[in-house]
Amino acid sequence: MSTRTPVACLRDRVGSTVTIAGWVHRRRVLKSVAFLVVRDRSGTAQAVFAEPPDVAEETVVRLTGQVVANPRAPQGVELREPLWEVLSAPEKRPPFELYRPEVAAGLPVVLDNAAVALRHPVLRRRFEVAAASVAAFRRVLDGQGFTEIHTPKIVATATESGANVFRLDYFGRPACLAQSPQFFKQAMVGVFERVYEVGPVFRAEPHDTARHLAQYTSLDAELGFISDHRDVMAVLRDVVAEMAAAAGPDAPVVPDEIPSIDFAAAQELLARNIGEDPRGEPDLAPAHERWLCEWAEREHRSEFLFVTGYPMAKRPFYTQPDPADPARSNSFDLLFRGLELVTGGQRLHRYADYLAVLGEEAGQYSDYLDAFAYGMPPHGRFAIGLERWVARVLGAANVRGATLFPRDLHRLRP
Amino acid sequence: MSTRTPVACLRDRVGSTVTIAGWVHRRRVLKSVAFLVVRDRSGTAQAVFAEPPDVAEETVVRLTGQVVANPRAPQGVELREPLWEVLSAPEKRPPFELYRPEVAAGLPVVLDNAAVALRHPVLRRRFEVAAASVAAFRRVLDGQGFTEIHTPKIVATATESGANVFRLDYFGRPACLAQSPQFFKQAMVGVFERVYEVGPVFRAEPHDTARHLAQYTSLDAELGFISDHRDVMAVLRDVVAEMAAAAGPDAPVVPDEIPSIDFAAAQELLARNIGEDPRGEPDLAPAHERWLCEWAEREHRSEFLFVTGYPMAKRPFYTQPDPADPARSNSFDLLFRGLELVTGGQRLHRYADYLAVLGEEAGQYSDYLDAFAYGMPPHGRFAIGLERWVARVLGAANVRGATLFPRDLHRLRP
Repeated sequence: MSTRTPVACLRDRVGSTVTIAGWVHRRRVLKSVAFLVVRDRSGTAQAVFAEPPDVAEETVVRLTGQVVANPRAPQGVELREPLWEVLSAPEKRPPFELYRPEVAAGLPVVLDNAAVALRHPVLRRRFEVAAASVAAFRRVLDGQGFTEIHTPKIVATATESGANVFRLDYFGRPACLAQSPQFFKQAMVGVFERVYEVGPVFRAEPHDTARHLAQYTSLDAELGFISDHRDVMAVLRDVVAEMAAAAGPDAPVVPDEIPSIDFAAAQELLARNIGEDPRGEPDLAPAHERWLCEWAEREHRSEFLFVTGYPMAKRPFYTQPDPADPARSNSFDLLFRGLELVTGGQRLHRYADYLAVLGEEAGQYSDYLDAFAYGMPPHGRFAIGLERWVARVLGAANVRGATLFPRDLHRLRP
Repeated sequence: MSTRTPVACLRDRVGSTVTIAGWVHRRRVLKSVAFLVVRDRSGTAQAVFAEPPDVAEETVVRLTGQVVANPRAPQGVELREPLWEVLSAPEKRPPFELYRPEVAAGLPVVLDNAAVALRHPVLRRRFEVAAASVAAFRRVLDGQGFTEIHTPKIVATATESGANVFRLDYFGRPACLAQSPQFFKQAMVGVFERVYEVGPVFRAEPHDTARHLAQYTSLDAELGFISDHRDVMAVLRDVVAEMAAAAGPDAPVVPDEIPSIDFAAAQELLARNIGEDPRGEPDLAPAHERWLCEWAEREHRSEFLFVTGYPMAKRPFYTQPDPADPARSNSFDLLFRGLELVTGGQRLHRYADYLAVLGEEAGQYSDYLDAFAYGMPPHGRFAIGLERWVARVLGAANVRGATLFPRDLHRLRP
């Protein structure tokens, strides 16, 4: 089918005879004329017939005919009286009408019928934005000397904690699905200095919320030879800017420098403004994150805000403390539209530091610790959940709406 | 550390004072002079001292000093008497000497100590070729209108057969790890027409061979609106050519058109040349594949050879038969250096055809079949195993040698 023309190119082919192929997006029969709107991956185009072809919507067709200018046609062009042939006829009707501009179905119907529902242009676009976002993530990191890696998803022990882990039988031995590529990407800083991975991570999330998935696509980066977490934030800023641009015309604007506020300063600001005093709390409450995002929009005209210097008390053991104040950490969260989008920071890099923080537990982490025994540079990381990013950028209320085939507490198919 | 200069750039900086950072690759102390060879992700460079710095190999160091031309130095330049500082000192010695040009350790030592062993430039290069190969795969497909997708790795039932499946507990329900993204990528042809995925696939391989892994990285592509399997072969040829070029100076050459031989013709050729008659066999034996590869090199000066038209008897149920001879299939194998590298072909696309071949088993495949009930174009697929590709291109005897952290019958860590 090498001579097939994408329907989006018809406006450049007026007067030519072309072959298009796609799905019957809509069939409309009027008194003296009939229309087929044909959808392919590039868009939709109209064909006009005196006699309506007897085809159901979603039939796969091939049409050959002349491109004629018509100011009243959607693209200003149409195929007039093309020859048509059916490549494949549907056996069932879609669960909702795909040609309507709005998605005329709730999320469960969409998810239960993903193979056909995602043909709706509004839904399909989410995954085009997802693909463009991932390409942007890679493009920025490739340009900054990162190496892409692929790491095991089956591991002997849980990395962070035993909770929320899927367990499986590995040739008769117990094993887990990896909750993150953390160990592997840290170890690979010793080999490549800067690495990234795009891959599935698994969380046996017992919560049935709009934000949690049992599997999601994690965009993970780890970089060595940093001075501190601010070097990580600088890379992340470039990544997010390019990913945002991939979202198209309604993309959020990422400032050249994302505004940043220290955790303690953020608490002061909240204390002065919200009629309660969060100082002493080790973390920000959701309402505080929302308030800070509104503040950043107001004060800095930015939908993005870094909060840095979180107390060590709530950060994982591998977090690097602030050398000037060991109760604070060299870590950050990136807030976007009222919620945390990315967590990152500098990690410990010295073997002795790991032994000190792990104490008696060090023995359980021997594979992990071994990577630090051979000389590791200061390094840090961030990770972006792809589905969460796309849902937030496009305003989808539920992260499942930005997942092709979500997996959660209740959903294991299709 | 923004002022850090990659060591590969020193030759352009003669006379300047620069800061480099990396690992002490080698420390050599002669009578009146001492050398540190420093390794970073760009290469190695030499620094010269009158007094030898007291640092072990693999120490992470930062050096600041003047770049001096010296025709006897490895790059023609060296740092003379730089200031040096230790960023991180190793606690253990590597299991073998990383500075020796050859890898002075067997595969088990390398795999058990991957975090440090892969720092050896020969080993590291394999994964740089892997990253470049994946980038090439994506670049070609992006250029041909494919959309990248991310699909579930946890599924309710095994796609192809119940054998070699890892089973897990999914919130109290039985589930499996996906052996391939097949169902999902076929379904997504209905949405995007052309899709690819780069991701892990899982096989509970009970065989302990040099070719089998329990997890590998599959480069999967599926494309709609094809005439037959030859359209798939044309895309695959472009992909493989770009991937081969990514392997660097010793890359195999991929002809503009990869030679192709029909299965029956291949059997005829073998019968005339090898002193046995394979006709009637439904598949090629390994010795036959080797002979055909030698033949293609001799006759067509090609290390790559397509074999097409395999008997339907040995192909999976979703394979499209040859319309002119339904005992043969619209499928192919791509052979490379004596072995099958890729399997692919056209699939069934009509709901009724699936019902007919599955018969009473159709009920077990309801999720899968549903994707074909709404109008699907003719489509086909191929999949390339990344680790097998890299091992074959670089001449690694064992696919584990092209895997960062392999998983197999015996190996679940590190």
